[in-house]
Amino acid sequence: MNFLAELQKITKDVLLKKEDMYVYAFDTSQNPEKLILPLAVVFPKNTQEVSKIANLCNKNNISIVPRAQGTNHCGGTRPVENCIIMHFSKMNKIINIDNDNLIAIVEPNVVIGDLNKELDKLNLFFPPDPSNLAVSTIGGAIALCAGGPRTFKYGNTKDYVINLEVVLADGTIIETSKNIAKNVTGYNLTSLFVGCEGTLGLITKATLKLIPKPQTRLLTMCYFDDLISATKCVNAIIKSGFIPSTLDLIDNFTIKTIEKFNPCGLLIDKEAMLLIELDGFEASVKYELEILKNILEKNDASSIIQAKNDIENENIWKARRSAFSALSQLKPNVITEDIVVPKSKIVDFVLKTQELSKKYNIITAIMGHAGDGNIHPNFALDLENETEKNNFKNLKDELFNFAISIGATLSGEHGIGKQKQKYLHKVLDKNAHILMKSIKNLLDSKDILNTGKSI
Amino acid sequence: MNFLAELQKITKDVLLKKEDMYVYAFDTSQNPEKLILPLAVVFPKNTQEVSKIANLCNKNNISIVPRAQGTNHCGGTRPVENCIIMHFSKMNKIINIDNDNLIAIVEPNVVIGDLNKELDKLNLFFPPDPSNLAVSTIGGAIALCAGGPRTFKYGNTKDYVINLEVVLADGTIIETSKNIAKNVTGYNLTSLFVGCEGTLGLITKATLKLIPKPQTRLLTMCYFDDLISATKCVNAIIKSGFIPSTLDLIDNFTIKTIEKFNPCGLLIDKEAMLLIELDGFEASVKYELEILKNILEKNDASSIIQAKNDIENENIWKARRSAFSALSQLKPNVITEDIVVPKSKIVDFVLKTQELSKKYNIITAIMGHAGDGNIHPNFALDLENETEKNNFKNLKDELFNFAISIGATLSGEHGIGKQKQKYLHKVLDKNAHILMKSIKNLLDSKDILNTGKSI
Repeated sequence: MNFLAELQKITKDVLLKKEDMYVYAFDTSQNPEKLILPLAVVFPKNTQEVSKIANLCNKNNISIVPRAQGTNHCGGTRPVENCIIMHFSKMNKIINIDNDNLIAIVEPNVVIGDLNKELDKLNLFFPPDPSNLAVSTIGGAIALCAGGPRTFKYGNTKDYVINLEVVLADGTIIETSKNIAKNVTGYNLTSLFVGCEGTLGLITKATLKLIPKPQTRLLTMCYFDDLISATKCVNAIIKSGFIPSTLDLIDNFTIKTIEKFNPCGLLIDKEAMLLIELDGFEASVKYELEILKNILEKNDASSIIQAKNDIENENIWKARRSAFSALSQLKPNVITEDIVVPKSKIVDFVLKTQELSKKYNIITAIMGHAGDGNIHPNFALDLENETEKNNFKNLKDELFNFAISIGATLSGEHGIGKQKQKYLHKVLDKNAHILMKSIKNLLDSKDILNTGKSI
Repeated sequence: MNFLAELQKITKDVLLKKEDMYVYAFDTSQNPEKLILPLAVVFPKNTQEVSKIANLCNKNNISIVPRAQGTNHCGGTRPVENCIIMHFSKMNKIINIDNDNLIAIVEPNVVIGDLNKELDKLNLFFPPDPSNLAVSTIGGAIALCAGGPRTFKYGNTKDYVINLEVVLADGTIIETSKNIAKNVTGYNLTSLFVGCEGTLGLITKATLKLIPKPQTRLLTMCYFDDLISATKCVNAIIKSGFIPSTLDLIDNFTIKTIEKFNPCGLLIDKEAMLLIELDGFEASVKYELEILKNILEKNDASSIIQAKNDIENENIWKARRSAFSALSQLKPNVITEDIVVPKSKIVDFVLKTQELSKKYNIITAIMGHAGDGNIHPNFALDLENETEKNNFKNLKDELFNFAISIGATLSGEHGIGKQKQKYLHKVLDKNAHILMKSIKNLLDSKDILNTGKSI
């Protein structure tokens, strides 16, 4: 019996027609140089099906590209030759929310925004927020160790995953730990799978650590007349001894673009804005606000505006989250980078990005989770235009080499995927890279799991 | 040239005489059934020496038992046949504290208390606290993923290690990541080494994430007339929506013992005490204190006493930290266990411990970081007394089996070492255990690194 017939014996939820599969040749990364269609798109319903499919693919040397919404920006969910797409959309249940033990057990395709709506009812909270809460799934967040704006205070996905059910390349099912946050019983397999971009195993169930929901959230928009003052202010806040829950930087171009696309009253004549959210008990937030105002005034903030209430707060975040869509109105392609620089080097990196944007004449919108040094320069361009395409290639090379020279890393939350591999050898310690490859070989000797991505 | 001669060519800091090495046959775990002396005790001064020694040992099939202060309680630093002890006492420098980037770079033998004294001057803070701050080292804390009382709010060591320099079994030196907290560039090797009990690599340098030092600390001693009320109160606090920085439980026997050994005014007639510390901005701590008092009153606390100032606060913690030493006055041996139960099962576990203590007539002091479900029952006994020894063996078996039946794990911060291996197969998923062994084999195919410990 051939592979596809065997696959259909495991589940009927399989797409095989070219016209049905065409959409899965793409994700939010730039269009592929060469269109590759998978052999099939399969929608497993449970762990057993995932296991059987993995086993079948392993025997037949067929690659599995696991995917949820494909919003990784780095080609991490793009098909490769001789692959199937494993789409987790049918594994989307919140299995349990346990208020007594502060944990939730979920399937991989649970949307993070939906989970937080359920947690809200119990005054609980799952902090990781990959900036597209209505779309991003837990499985994707785990695959990329996603973070988002709240990482500065709350950490990222790895800090909230305490146990995983994972299907290995040959179909073996493992449970990495126990449903207990504090556990030193054997090696930390959980963290090995978080951020591996689906190259070591297929996540079928996750136990998440929850925290109490902060009582109050207060969003402050701090405007600056130049971008450098804003980045210097970021460093002043970092050194001041308190940790806002978000410390996001947005440049003038981004402000204008999102305000046009999603009007919410941003001051479009300002060169930069910091989106600073404080959360916690009301008494504490009030106190922190005084400290914050003091720092902002000393650091040349030209306008300080508080969101009036939770609705306005949410509207402004919604506008910020729409930045990628807003930029997509300007040019056919938007490429989002995800560099993390040492906190003390944010100014240098932002200056360099602006310089290269001018030099190569590429529309550039700078935003990022500045508290972590995680800067997302977004480039809007037309990749069909050969000049722009070449200019961008040169810009990216220069920017990445500069970033690496100041101690940066290639990704804070989007992963490496296919698109950043050429820089890997410049960032990873050579022997560590060899060890990573040995671990990949140990867990997936036929290289069928998300072949060609990450390391 | 024989092994010991070659070893002495690498460094002169080697002990070879039996009388010098005798002390290294022991750690804080119960006395060994059989005394084993190492072939040598070596004190490397830098990474290069560690690398050369590892390479030499690997070639000669000699085990390396890495150790610092040996306070792991589980035999994790005990010699095995045909081994050397690698003592890190000469690698004890704080290399750099970087206020701008909120990181510290340290050698493994830096004592955590000493690091925090330096950080204090800069208003910075490294939260993990293995309860013996004046002794415990960073290297030991990393090997065991130590936590201590503040884990409930701040997480444990793995949450604060962002990059490691590690010497592998064959002497290869790797850097696991970059000095950047938010990084998804390749696999998370860092977390693989944290908590591996020295069985996968020898840590020679660590980059730690720091946070701002909390402005205020307020310690509340909450007494209860029975132990069960105290544990129920722990659950009420966990469900209440705020997270104290510590939520430690101490039973009457422990209260009496530490008060006798280290008088600090504890109420020795109370059946149980919770040591609850709040920290943060003063305004916030005041607010939290009101919530806390409300919960305590509703949950039958019979006496609520605040530490008057930082000195009293520190004295009480010092007394708590002395519990192990205090218990050691009672009997020749004190055995500390380190079970973590689901938070909702703390009451059941404490009741079972009391029941078995009576049944087998073994002196038992219960304390623990109750907010995490991490309970340390301490057993004082004389292992030379055959009846006590057998009784303890039976008690331990019954207690561990009960704990495992309610979903517990074997260790929260002390590790598995030699002494908990017989229970491993009951706790670890079978396939996960096989994978752990494959990873061990991949990194240390000759099994020379802390041979016979952990998995």
